Amino acid sequence: MMLGFLDVLGTAVFAVSGVLLAGKLRMDPFGVLVLGVVTAVGGGTIRDMVLNDGPVFWVRDPTDLVVAMVTCFVAILVIRQPRQLPKWILPVLDAIGLAVFVGIGVNKAFASGTGPLIAVCMGVITGVGGGIIRDVLAREIPMILRTEVYATACIIGGIAHTTAFHVFHLSSQHASVLGMVITLGIRLAAIRWHLKLPTFELEGKE
Amino acid sequence: MMLGFLDVLGTAVFAVSGVLLAGKLRMDPFGVLVLGVVTAVGGGTIRDMVLNDGPVFWVRDPTDLVVAMVTCFVAILVIRQPRQLPKWILPVLDAIGLAVFVGIGVNKAFASGTGPLIAVCMGVITGVGGGIIRDVLAREIPMILRTEVYATACIIGGIAHTTAFHVFHLSSQHASVLGMVITLGIRLAAIRWHLKLPTFELEGKE
Amino acid sequence: MMLGFLDVLGTAVFAVSGVLLAGKLRMDPFGVLVLGVVTAVGGGTIRDMVLNDGPVFWVRDPTDLVVAMVTCFVAILVIRQPRQLPKWILPVLDAIGLAVFVGIGVNKAFASGTGPLIAVCMGVITGVGGGIIRDVLAREIPMILRTEVYATACIIGGIAHTTAFHVFHLSSQHASVLGMVITLGIRLAAIRWHLKLPTFELEGKE
Repeated sequence: MMLGFLDVLGTAVFAVSGVLLAGKLRMDPFGVLVLGVVTAVGGGTIRDMVLNDGPVFWVRDPTDLVVAMVTCFVAILVIRQPRQLPKWILPVLDAIGLAVFVGIGVNKAFASGTGPLIAVCMGVITGVGGGIIRDVLAREIPMILRTEVYATACIIGGIAHTTAFHVFHLSSQHASVLGMVITLGIRLAAIRWHLKLPTFELEGKE
Repeated sequence: MMLGFLDVLGTAVFAVSGVLLAGKLRMDPFGVLVLGVVTAVGGGTIRDMVLNDGPVFWVRDPTDLVVAMVTCFVAILVIRQPRQLPKWILPVLDAIGLAVFVGIGVNKAFASGTGPLIAVCMGVITGVGGGIIRDVLAREIPMILRTEVYATACIIGGIAHTTAFHVFHLSSQHASVLGMVITLGIRLAAIRWHLKLPTFELEGKE
Repeated sequence: MMLGFLDVLGTAVFAVSGVLLAGKLRMDPFGVLVLGVVTAVGGGTIRDMVLNDGPVFWVRDPTDLVVAMVTCFVAILVIRQPRQLPKWILPVLDAIGLAVFVGIGVNKAFASGTGPLIAVCMGVITGVGGGIIRDVLAREIPMILRTEVYATACIIGGIAHTTAFHVFHLSSQHASVLGMVITLGIRLAAIRWHLKLPTFELEGKE
């Protein structure tokens, strides 16, 4: 139940993040719709194509697809105000969607019977996939490459979720919430205090 | 029969659109071949990976793959003239391929037994997928984002096709043609008279 | 056995190529890890999604995934030296990975029972897929579009491999080695002597 609610929440915030990015690109409403929907369902779509047991989730059950579409329409109608949006809106929405989707991805991997390593990978794919597609289509450098402590947050959250479930035998729901809180906490802290790990940098020109 | 012909036509025009874009990038003939083929079969490939019932269409039946390859070779040999190509060639070819592939995608979704919402989505994916891959690889902003009334045309065409089939019980073939004519008509009108919907635009910097 | 070793080698060199490109982008170590791993397993992942018989290879057997991860960690620790890397490192690593993965892709296609045309396509997809994802994410023009004799090399290598196996009945292993040597030889020759085919170029603005 609660996971169902979080799923809808994650879908909606990612859809809005797609709409907000589209707002910088002079697109018409249906183009905005496409970018918002792709952002919302993209990560889970890649996950299901990789796991490959049957059609992807929104073909089996179009709930998330409808949530994404309705969210886009509402967002297009509501947000259309000319005043400046604060800079932190898109990263924070992205962080919420990221945290929720990493947790959902890990759970779906467990449900498919994969081991812990693959489960963490599925969490990361589900979390970052939609945002990567959004940014590649809009020709932004993907957040996962340009933003510090982004991959880090979802890898640590996914490992915490998996460990809590496999090693400490928390219930699936408790383990999910723990992982999501950790992912979200790391990302919000990184956005608020501009945390960064030491970057890996080479001077050589390729 | 007629749908088979339209399939070949859509594949060929998308292949040529890939070759034409490649012509701006100083690629060698095999690179041109790859870009042309990916453009021609990309949308249907994504659709089949999402629907996920067996190998993608060109693995099951390589006809379209061969059509795309032959078209690329012919296009490379024939088009190699130095004079300026008119600006409207690529958008018009793209519009024909788009209209045909939206119709084919909707039909394949019906054949897989999906509902009307998923059918429209499959039409859109089939129609725009190849062009998106083409433009992402060539580092163009995808037409679906930069071009007005692009997503709009294929969504309306797909809805018309689905409605004609499901609500008005037209034959699959008549419904397909109706949908294709609507998609193509909207795109051509948009290209000719520079139609646009009011764009959705935000001033806020993200 | 030897093919298993080559698989590990190809995975490792592609992972390093991802790490090297990441070194130009000021990413933190986990971001580097993601780019390296995606480069290493991306081509095979697309191939398996297209062939669509069961989960992709690294879900079934995570060996290659672990190899890619360990390689990235080692590369991040070892390469962190500030002096200039020679320009040819990335293309040469890429050439080795390309040659190995084209061969592996052709073999996997034969194992799935596809015909020779599809086998060559699967070789090309496996070889170029990871590098394309790497370059798209990092907003480089993909090597297959910008680099001469790149698609050419893997198409010729894949055809040689397929012909040796199907027409001259070489063992799978001998045919693989032949194809790999040809792909690698063409790429290295092209890098060393700046070989190029006549390029296909159009003056017309699209």
